[in-house]
Amino acid sequence: MAAKPKLHYPNGRGRMESVRWVLAAAGVEFDEEFLETKEQLQKLQDGNHLLFQQVPMVEIDGMKLVQTRSILHYIADKHHLFGKDLKERTLIDMYVEGTLDLLELIIMHPFLKPDDQQKEVVNMAQKAIIRYFPVFEKVLRDHGQRFLVGNQLSLADVILLQTILALEEKIPNILSAFPHLQEFTVKISNIPTIKKFLEPGSKKKPPPDDIYVRTVYNIFMP
Amino acid sequence: MAAKPKLHYPNGRGRMESVRWVLAAAGVEFDEEFLETKEQLQKLQDGNHLLFQQVPMVEIDGMKLVQTRSILHYIADKHHLFGKDLKERTLIDMYVEGTLDLLELIIMHPFLKPDDQQKEVVNMAQKAIIRYFPVFEKVLRDHGQRFLVGNQLSLADVILLQTILALEEKIPNILSAFPHLQEFTVKISNIPTIKKFLEPGSKKKPPPDDIYVRTVYNIFMP
Repeated sequence: MAAKPKLHYPNGRGRMESVRWVLAAAGVEFDEEFLETKEQLQKLQDGNHLLFQQVPMVEIDGMKLVQTRSILHYIADKHHLFGKDLKERTLIDMYVEGTLDLLELIIMHPFLKPDDQQKEVVNMAQKAIIRYFPVFEKVLRDHGQRFLVGNQLSLADVILLQTILALEEKIPNILSAFPHLQEFTVKISNIPTIKKFLEPGSKKKPPPDDIYVRTVYNIFMP
Repeated sequence: MAAKPKLHYPNGRGRMESVRWVLAAAGVEFDEEFLETKEQLQKLQDGNHLLFQQVPMVEIDGMKLVQTRSILHYIADKHHLFGKDLKERTLIDMYVEGTLDLLELIIMHPFLKPDDQQKEVVNMAQKAIIRYFPVFEKVLRDHGQRFLVGNQLSLADVILLQTILALEEKIPNILSAFPHLQEFTVKISNIPTIKKFLEPGSKKKPPPDDIYVRTVYNIFMP
């Protein structure tokens, strides 16, 4: 049996949380090695374990994958979460890219100055409600299926659910005008692998707190 | 015969220039519809032609593709610029993602305040010389082949050449410590489709000037 993937990142969500989500959705168990100090990062860099000197890095199938999207794409390809043909793949890719643009705002939020954080919540809510959620609401309404693309679970569903749940932590009623997305959220959350990931004790990380923010600054700031 | 792809974007590089490069490298002729005013953007948005209300958008094979990476991936898949198997594909993806991180700095540069522009050129040069170019120099040196992955042209070669040439416009000696990248630049530039794209009169766009920056502000600023 192949070794479990090993994830190298601080003990928090950041750019690695999507990777955790997709592995969990695919039913893949994984190990984590948490970066806690600048010296640990330096050691990975000095040992040529990080192609571009950066984490996330995932050891998987004999490779040391970097760049969040590349890691997600590899896992999605391997576990049949990327559609059945190029047309479906391209739809999934576009949906994922749009959702990642929204998720990026959530990832950066804890690192804003306190004064800017509240304003940014408003910006996020607007982006979600005006730009992104109407697209997915319409997709689900028009085809009437459970999943975004091709009537089966894909990377697009997983990243969208991750993003919705992270936004709901900040803005509980964010889906109030989107009944199909509400239903989507319930249904995808109940897929057994994902349900397990959403239960206490899984490798899903809690919302970023001050300790996480300080750890990230300590590791990555020059 | 299928209609030519049609590119919707302002008349400048920005996020569309990579798409122009990859289409040109693949030998695909394309048309362009240049956005010049906020009203033109509004019209595309109102007509539901832009999935997430944004350009770049490319009409191709009956689809309206958005999100730069998704467009690049589709073209690369269609024209066999994405490797022969998942392992090659993943290498190409990682190389492209790293290079796009560097290219993003170049794309944003003309929109910085004048005082910040000079500092940012230093930052770009450092990132290129310390983080990105050593990786590609080593890849080329180690395998001794002309292309980055699998001994044939891929998306990774095209985006890297685009990025090198754009950086050289600002920092002419940026490759002085990288002999294999110098050779790579010459060889990839001489591939007939790319050579044609580099000649005057092609659809390659000039470096961003004040008119381009003003046009972008006029179209996209609220």
